Amino acid sequence: MNERQRARRPGGRSARVGAEVHQAVTDLISERGYGNFTIGEVAARAGVADSSIYRRWGSLETLLTDVALTRLNARSPMPDTGSLSGDLRTYAANVAREITGPDGLALVRLAVALSSNGQQGLQARDDLLAERARQLQSMLDRASERGEHAPDALGVLDHIMAPMYIRVLFGMELTPDYVDGLVDRML
Amino acid sequence: MNERQRARRPGGRSARVGAEVHQAVTDLISERGYGNFTIGEVAARAGVADSSIYRRWGSLETLLTDVALTRLNARSPMPDTGSLSGDLRTYAANVAREITGPDGLALVRLAVALSSNGQQGLQARDDLLAERARQLQSMLDRASERGEHAPDALGVLDHIMAPMYIRVLFGMELTPDYVDGLVDRML
Repeated sequence: MNERQRARRPGGRSARVGAEVHQAVTDLISERGYGNFTIGEVAARAGVADSSIYRRWGSLETLLTDVALTRLNARSPMPDTGSLSGDLRTYAANVAREITGPDGLALVRLAVALSSNGQQGLQARDDLLAERARQLQSMLDRASERGEHAPDALGVLDHIMAPMYIRVLFGMELTPDYVDGLVDRML
Repeated sequence: MNERQRARRPGGRSARVGAEVHQAVTDLISERGYGNFTIGEVAARAGVADSSIYRRWGSLETLLTDVALTRLNARSPMPDTGSLSGDLRTYAANVAREITGPDGLALVRLAVALSSNGQQGLQARDDLLAERARQLQSMLDRASERGEHAPDALGVLDHIMAPMYIRVLFGMELTPDYVDGLVDRML
């Protein structure tokens, strides 16, 4: 069995390496901020060879984007509750939980840091946003197909996501009432 | 004339040192990000002694906050146009110009970085926000005194400032129509 076949076997060594590398990245972002560590340091922390990381992700930017998307999708999957109101409320509550949790600030800092890290960083940020925007748009499309009047994805970004992100960055509390209030105003 | 008297003379050596130190900080934030330089490096870049910086600002956090507030106040003073609509439009346009300008991302990164830089960073961030919030509240109070129905300062933060900041962080354009649209929706 060659390296590529091993890498594809689900749940085996490849999955463990993936999980360990992801955790190492999240820890390093929390401790030092993005831009202050190398692939070599990720590898050392995860207990894998540098070459394993280069082979699988190619660059630190690709790895960071993969980490961010995987965590977002695992913890804040796009809800499908059967109503726009239920979907937006669940989505907003998930995002609030995510960005106020232990890794939340690290994720926000990642998005900020990617924006100021040259062409590769910008590409990684755009890929991350495009995938998340696509998921959000699917949720809104389902509402339109049910005959509900759905806002556009940018409206959700501007008036639900943005206030939550900025309040977290500025150290203000996100109460459930506040988060629900943002959704109510939008609906 | 002792050091303290010299430091107080307006427009003299003290003012020049202040301007050079401020510029050095802005440049270093742009180049390296916050947290990746020391007072010694600021001093070297500005061509002044470390001790001049410690005597005047005491800590890197205090210096960074001073830089951020000075720049914001110089470039985006709170407007007083005689109407709430005029004030909010001018304020939003000023903020948009500031955060899309050459130092804009550095300022946003400063706010983000202060949030994740321990107790001194949090204090510096809170001081910066409190002063800016006080200025915004004065503008809204003037509208109330004229009998206009003014939003609260947090509403302005959530629905005018936050969308602009997040769009800049996410690499989206801020057109004048978009910025005016945010103000229209609020009014």
